Formats: sequence, structure tokens, C-alpha cells
Amino acid sequence: MTAVKNILFIMCDQLRWDYLSCYGHPSLHTPNIDALAARGVRFTRSYVQSPICGASRMSTYTGRYVQSHGASWNGFPLKAGEMTMGDYLRPLGLRTALVGKTHMEPDAETMQRLGIDPQSIIGVRVSECGFDPYERDDGLWAIGPDGRYDPRLPRYNEYLNQKGYGGDNPWHDYANSGLNDDGSLASGWAMRHAGKPARVEENDSETPYMTRRAMDFISEAGADPWCLHLSFIKPHWPYIAPAPYHDMYGIKDMIPVVRSEDERKDPHPVFREFMQHRVSLTFSRPEVRDEIVPVYMGLIKQIDDQIGELFRFLDRKGLMDKTMIVLTSDHGDYLGDHWMGEKDLFHDASVRVPLIIYDPSREADAARGTVCDELVEAIDLAPTFIDAAGGDAGNESHRLEGRSLLPLLRAAAPEQWRDVSISEYDYSLSQAAQRLGVAPRDAHLFMVADKHWKLMHAPGFRPMLFDLLNDPQELHDLGTDPAFESQCQRLMAALHRWALRPSQRTTISDAALQAGRGKSMRRGILIGVWDESDIPAELWTAYRGERES
Amino acid sequence: MTAVKNILFIMCDQLRWDYLSCYGHPSLHTPNIDALAARGVRFTRSYVQSPICGASRMSTYTGRYVQSHGASWNGFPLKAGEMTMGDYLRPLGLRTALVGKTHMEPDAETMQRLGIDPQSIIGVRVSECGFDPYERDDGLWAIGPDGRYDPRLPRYNEYLNQKGYGGDNPWHDYANSGLNDDGSLASGWAMRHAGKPARVEENDSETPYMTRRAMDFISEAGADPWCLHLSFIKPHWPYIAPAPYHDMYGIKDMIPVVRSEDERKDPHPVFREFMQHRVSLTFSRPEVRDEIVPVYMGLIKQIDDQIGELFRFLDRKGLMDKTMIVLTSDHGDYLGDHWMGEKDLFHDASVRVPLIIYDPSREADAARGTVCDELVEAIDLAPTFIDAAGGDAGNESHRLEGRSLLPLLRAAAPEQWRDVSISEYDYSLSQAAQRLGVAPRDAHLFMVADKHWKLMHAPGFRPMLFDLLNDPQELHDLGTDPAFESQCQRLMAALHRWALRPSQRTTISDAALQAGRGKSMRRGILIGVWDESDIPAELWTAYRGERES
Repeated sequence: MTAVKNILFIMCDQLRWDYLSCYGHPSLHTPNIDALAARGVRFTRSYVQSPICGASRMSTYTGRYVQSHGASWNGFPLKAGEMTMGDYLRPLGLRTALVGKTHMEPDAETMQRLGIDPQSIIGVRVSECGFDPYERDDGLWAIGPDGRYDPRLPRYNEYLNQKGYGGDNPWHDYANSGLNDDGSLASGWAMRHAGKPARVEENDSETPYMTRRAMDFISEAGADPWCLHLSFIKPHWPYIAPAPYHDMYGIKDMIPVVRSEDERKDPHPVFREFMQHRVSLTFSRPEVRDEIVPVYMGLIKQIDDQIGELFRFLDRKGLMDKTMIVLTSDHGDYLGDHWMGEKDLFHDASVRVPLIIYDPSREADAARGTVCDELVEAIDLAPTFIDAAGGDAGNESHRLEGRSLLPLLRAAAPEQWRDVSISEYDYSLSQAAQRLGVAPRDAHLFMVADKHWKLMHAPGFRPMLFDLLNDPQELHDLGTDPAFESQCQRLMAALHRWALRPSQRTTISDAALQAGRGKSMRRGILIGVWDESDIPAELWTAYRGERES
Repeated sequence: MTAVKNILFIMCDQLRWDYLSCYGHPSLHTPNIDALAARGVRFTRSYVQSPICGASRMSTYTGRYVQSHGASWNGFPLKAGEMTMGDYLRPLGLRTALVGKTHMEPDAETMQRLGIDPQSIIGVRVSECGFDPYERDDGLWAIGPDGRYDPRLPRYNEYLNQKGYGGDNPWHDYANSGLNDDGSLASGWAMRHAGKPARVEENDSETPYMTRRAMDFISEAGADPWCLHLSFIKPHWPYIAPAPYHDMYGIKDMIPVVRSEDERKDPHPVFREFMQHRVSLTFSRPEVRDEIVPVYMGLIKQIDDQIGELFRFLDRKGLMDKTMIVLTSDHGDYLGDHWMGEKDLFHDASVRVPLIIYDPSREADAARGTVCDELVEAIDLAPTFIDAAGGDAGNESHRLEGRSLLPLLRAAAPEQWRDVSISEYDYSLSQAAQRLGVAPRDAHLFMVADKHWKLMHAPGFRPMLFDLLNDPQELHDLGTDPAFESQCQRLMAALHRWALRPSQRTTISDAALQAGRGKSMRRGILIGVWDESDIPAELWTAYRGERES
């Protein structure tokens, strides 16, 4: 198979699957992303491994389920030693660079115990989930009474200062704030200000800035092959956009909210508590969606425009036919659907993401512009990149739990694809767990979905079940209906099979195991041998004959 | 609670639970081990986490289930980064030394990737599962046509050479071989030679040698606190003993074999294939037990005698009232029971081990000489040692999956102990898996046992179930009997709960999670806030007022 030279891996943050015109949004036109879909494959059932930034990304980068890598929530360090895309791709000759967000927290305790200097090249890679950070920026430059959320200092703030935006945190004061009528600061952290224009020139806002940084890296890389992870911060909150994107859309452009009063009658206990979170209560007020959703759409439109700039740049550089381009997201955004804000649970608004892959190689021509309905997962990207770059992800099956999508991209669909998708959510830090009295060790949610059904298993509680074919909006929880008990049991059985997998047998390959069967006798370990004549004389060579004494 | 000064952690290799007089063996008298039991607590339901040397030990040393650490068979490297007893005890001020066997294989690939020099102090500890090797000796100095099983060169061979035993592998040629009538070498690898005396003076054989090395370490340590892992190689095969232990016991001293013809009628498919392994077929011949079992008993008797020497040495040093002493094994030995040789499956002969703990502290006085019938596991030792040495294993609950036995040793039994014990076996390298056509990823067996029932789950096959109360010899597999389906389901449900545990969330403690609920707002992340007045003004400090521009 043809190897691609470069990989441009674009991730948006908190971009729902259905807020792109190629995925059916009627009024949010994203022609540049749509053009990518027209040249590649668009996946309609792409699930993230956890509907939360950090855990989702750690799964995407490692190619492993959340239960396997353990970094199950934002700020939970990824264990030193977990291999990531960068670690797999670098030996294949690719520079692996990061521009933007990863939400990676280094495992400082283990690094210290193992004597790994965080400032060394190895230390930086272990700290940055395997990437070489061209510019790391998580876009969360928050400050509260207990200090900074992220102790790093962003280069973006330096940039803004140089451009004349003052203060020690222009990220907040300009890029993510507007102005009140009285001239006072209208912080983007208060959602009622969402519709105000951010106090930066559009060109100085985060999305164009990060796009230019990506171009800088690509220019610097020159002829070297690379994998660039361009990881946009938007349309993640704070919901606020620079002009003209702040009022490009209005209420008339919004798709309807997906929620029903029935959902609030005897809901699943975990769902009930999540509906009580502040963000859910806020998004359940009608005026909130009217304020937020148009701005959310504007932020996406801005990304699409910047992606257009980036594609034209690649064209000018002659890189479009050498570069695999991926566009996806780390999770969705409820935006008030199901009486929820944020992400966290497993409705499609939260766990389902867009995934478009353009493969420049000739083998992919037959599949261009097609749509793939198979169940794909974020962990499939790492093996896809390895195979695309000329490696063999099959040799890494003892570590990688995803599957290479290359056959699907090259119209060579394998006989058997996966039957179910798994996603997880660690709610141990949530108010919901606190109110339900669930201990941190038990506060874990699991989704098991096939093409027809989606089950949520919350240990200690009843199941939640949706019929995706007959109730695509997921408004009717069938988890307590005896008529569907067998579906619950079937999906639970799939979850149990998954849970018993040997996810930590990462130091010996499956191929080595297959080849190693029955080999110990050839190194002199002779078990169960009664008489010398029971086994071939050759196996005794080292013990007999010339060694008589 | 009083901290003990030292910990002497004695492990035998392949010692069945029932081959000690304090555990009821009628003719194998082990007065020194019995005396330890009289001063400590003897556990009757102690299970190893895997009935195979390497996996069992890695669980014992890490305090984690096999599925959690992944080193699921002999020679599968333990991941760099997994913490072990040594890593926990060293910061508490104990020297943590090894004399004897661990079966540890270093994770050389990860060490190289992380830049850890195997020769550095950190590198040696990562390579030796956290111990400082005073003398590492796995007792497997086998050589075959493909080379050495263990590439190290044993100091024990040097010792034997110095004592006048010649050749390049006197471990085999003298310590583990006898002589045929014609003067030729009778290798201990051929079991028919088991009854011949090994060609070494008793004092030069492995057990006394290792005991003396333990004394050397203790003498050198002087006043320093320590945890010494004295890990005997015997009574593990090669089954051969020096005089006088080679013929100290005879057929009349043997306890009866536990097997019935019924077991061979329609056995569980995995059990059937294990019965077809060479070692099982060999041990199923009546003459084999008659030759091997008396020697196996002699090797245990020698260990008991050496333990007596060691205890008298500790007495002379005045260390008996400062030193916690533990005696256990890494797994048992079928010895022909159930038509099996070796270990590998979950009958008591294989998975159940002796466990005796002597705690010198005054709080333990009330429990001296008592017997504890609770379900305990090998992974309980690491937390026990941490607590005994004055640490708090509770702070390590995000890594350690065992429970401290200190309350049981100090007659302060907790209200709730565990309901089930779990053990595992990775049979991916076995002939059984090959013959059954089971792929390496699926070749994993699970035991779930409570005090009444024991279930084996082999994914892809029917369950195996024993009623331990009414069939303590485990001769009647009830796994296909519909009358016991509910028991199978109950134990399977316990296994599934276990399998969904967050075993890899090791970089953040449960206490930190409990304390961290709802803290992100205090670092400026304000989610779901509509209006500034929705949350306390304090949370806005860093964004408002003085920061106006």
C-alpha cells in the first residue's frame, strides 16, 4: 500500500457531529470542511472513547480505551510509559508536532521516580503525550482565587500583548470578553455576554492564530515528512466570537432543541443528577440557547473559513496530494438537548463526533466522497496513521485497541468490523456522584452501542437504553421496559467480554505469543519428562554427552 | 499502631498449601514453620493471583491483579513504571533486598524509550521489580539447543566451582543431577532420577546456600531497617534432593492422590486439554508420584530445617521481636491430582498456598497461634507490609488492589472483608490453547471463589464450578448442572464487577478525587454561569474590578 508523506490531524474542541453542513446542518454552511468530505470519506457513526476533553484525547493519542490508559478525566495524568501516536510515528520518519490543545497532564510522580528529566527531549515527549510541542495551548487560561487552572503561560498572551492588547491575561480580557454598554468588561465566562463581539480583531483571535502557527510549522518542516496535530480550541467555551462571527447567525438559523418533558419524569438516577448540574439548568432556560447557539455556530464558521485558508496554503505548497487530512472533534456539546449542558453523558449530542478523512493515495480514489456507516472509534486514528505512514499497526495489537481505518478509506472493507462501540465516563469528581453517594472507585459509566441500540451501564444503577433506529433522538429510555431486557443483557454481555480483555499485556506482542508456543524446551526447560528418551535427543544436547564429568 | 522494624518475606516456589504439618500433612513434619504459625496467624484460604511463577510474583510484588499489571506469564516483562513493594517500602526507611527468585523480566523496550539506563540504580530497581538484588537467582539455569533460558550467570555456579564442583553449569551437573549405576550423569530434568541423591553435599545445595546468603544480608544490614525477600527456589522442579533428604520419605508417607475416573468423562474443554499436556500424562502414571512425591517432601523438609537455622540466627541477633516474618508460596503443584502435573489451573492443589504471618508487635498478641479463614490474596501482602512498616496503604488505594492484613493479624477484624477471590491464568502460550484454536487475546482463564463455591470462567467455553463445602476435593464439576446455574451467574456477576474496576487510574489518589469534587471553579473555570451574580463574587476576583482596562 502507498504510504502518505504527511498527516494533518485537525481536531476541534466540543464540536457536535451535526453542526456541519456535510452532516446535514441546514443553515451552518461549512464549504471547506464539506470539500474535504467530498475528497475523502465521511463517517456517520464515529464515537469518542469518553465525552470529556482529557480522557477522549488520551484515548485518541494512545489508541487505547480509557479503562486501559487510566487518564479518565481532565487533569488526571497519563501514565509515563503509555505510548502515543508520536511514539509510533517518529520511528517511521515523521516529525510529530503539536499546535494547540491536548489537555495532557504529565505523570510527574512516575517521571521523578524513574529519573526522567521533564526538560529533556524524552521528558518533554512524555509530558506532551508523545508530541513535540510546536505550540501547546489548551485555551484554558483561567484564573481563580486558588490560582491558575493551567500553570503554563501562553505564547498567545505574548502575541496579544505585542499586538497592543494589554494586561497579564489578554486571552481573557480581549479574546474571550466583550464590553458592556457602560464600557466595563463583559467576561465570556458569563454566558449572557456570548452575543457581544470579542474585543479582538478577528485575525488576532484564537482560531486564525492557531491556523497560522500550523502554517509556520509546515513551512519550517520543509521537505521533512510530518504529522501535525492542529488542535483548535474552539468552539469550546467560553462561548464568545470576534466580529463578524459574533452575529453571523440568529435564532432563525438554529436547529430545534431535542428534549421532551418525558425525559424529566423518573429519569435514570445518574441522568437526573446530571440534569441538576448548573450548566444543565442554565441551558434548560430558553433564552440561553438563543444566546449561545448562534455564537457556537459562528465559532464553527470561523474554523471552516480558517480551514479553507489552510487548504489553500497546502495547495500552494504542493502538499495536498501528499498529505492525509483528518477532521474530527474530542466530543460534542449538549447545548440544552436532553436538558443538559456541556458533554459527559452518552447521547449523540455528546459522544458522537464528525470524522472526515481524506487519503491522497490512489488506492483511496474509489472511496472519495463516500459515506461510511460502520462503527468507528477515536482509538482507530492512531493505527490508521501508523498504517498510512507505512508502518504496520498489526504489530502493535498488544497495545493498540483501535483498528486501522485504511481498508474503509480504500474501499477494501474487511469482512468483519466491530459489533459494538464502547465509551466511558469517569464521574468521580462530579456533583452527581457526590449527591448519589457514589465512591470514586465506582463512579464510572459505560456506553455500549451497536447500530441499533445504545446502552448506558452505571454500576449500582439500572441500565439506560435507546433504540437508535426507532428513536434516533434518544428521547425514550427503554432501560426499565421488560420487553427490552434481552437487548440490555446482550449489550451487557458485550461489555463484560470487553472488560475481561488483557489490556495491560503490552510488553509482549500477539505475534510473539503465537510464535512462542511450546518453545521453552529449546532453552532447556524440560517439564514433565520422565525418561530421557521421551523427547528428542537434541533437547538434551547441553546436558549430556560431552558434559559428562 | 506499632510499626515493625524489619520484614522477612519468605517465599517458597511451588509449595502446595497442604504439605506442611501445621496445615495437616500427617507425615511431613515441619516443626520450624509450625512454630512460626504458633506465634503468628495461619491463613487457610490464601489464593495466589495466578498459578504460575512469574504472574503470581508480579501480583504479589505490585499488590495488583494480573489483568492490572499485564505480566501474565513467565517472561512477560513487567511494565516499567509499575510500583512494587520495594518502591513503597524504601521511602519508609527500609532497605529492600532480594535473595533468590523473582522471575522478573525487565521491560527493556520501555526503559530504552524512556532513557533509563539498566545499570543505574533506578534501572536496576525497575529491572528487579523494585528490590535491590543482594543475590538474584531464579534457579532455572537451563540450557537447550537455542541457548540459555536465563541469560544471567549465577553466583551459585561460581560458589560451586570454588567448592570443587566443576564444569560450566554445576547447578545442573551437581546440584540438580544424580549418578546412574554406570557412573553417567542422571539429569534431574528426567523425573525418573528424582530419587537419586543430588551430587552435592547438603550444605552446598540451593536451599542452605540461599539461607546463608539471607544471613549475610541481615548481618551486613546491621542496625538498618530492612525488608528481605528470601525467595527459595525449591521445592520447584527439577525434583531432586541432596542426601539425606532424597530418601527421607517413602511411599508410606504419601497422602493419597486426589483424582477420579469421573473427571476424565466429558471434562471441561480447557481442563481436558491441560490433562493432555506432557507433564499431566506423566504424573498420571502411578510410578511417577511414587518417585516424585517423597522427594518433593524431602525438599520441603530441607526448607523447614533451614528456616529453623534462620530463626535461631535471628534469635541470636536479637531480631525476633523486631521482625515481621511471612511464609508463603507462589503457587502449588498438582503432583498428579486431578490427572494434572505442574500448576496452571484453579484446583486447590494449584492456586491455594500456605500463608503464615508472624507480627512481633504487642497488638498482635491476642491473635497468636490462631487460624484465619477469611479469603486472602497474595496481593494483600504489599499493603500489609506498608502498614506494618508504619506507612498507610490506604493512601495507595489507587494503585494497590489488595487489602492490608494487619487488622486480621491484630484481632481487629474489619466489619467487611472481601466476598470473592479472583485468580487468573494466561494460557496463550500453551499447547492447550493451540489445540483449542484459541487466539492469544482470548486465552485467559478466571477463577472467582467465595468460601462455598469456586468458578472457572474460560471465555468461549462453559463454566467449571465446584462446591467447596460438599466436595472439598473438587472432583465434581457442576458447571453444566442447571441446578447450579444461579451460582454460576452470581459468581460471573462478581467477576464482571471486578473486570469493570478502574485499575489503571493510578496517577491520582482516591483521596484526591474525594477532596477535589467541585474545585475547578476555584481556578477560574466557570462552567454554566449565565450571569455574574450566579456565583460568589470571590470566584470572579481574578477577572473583574482591578483588571478593568
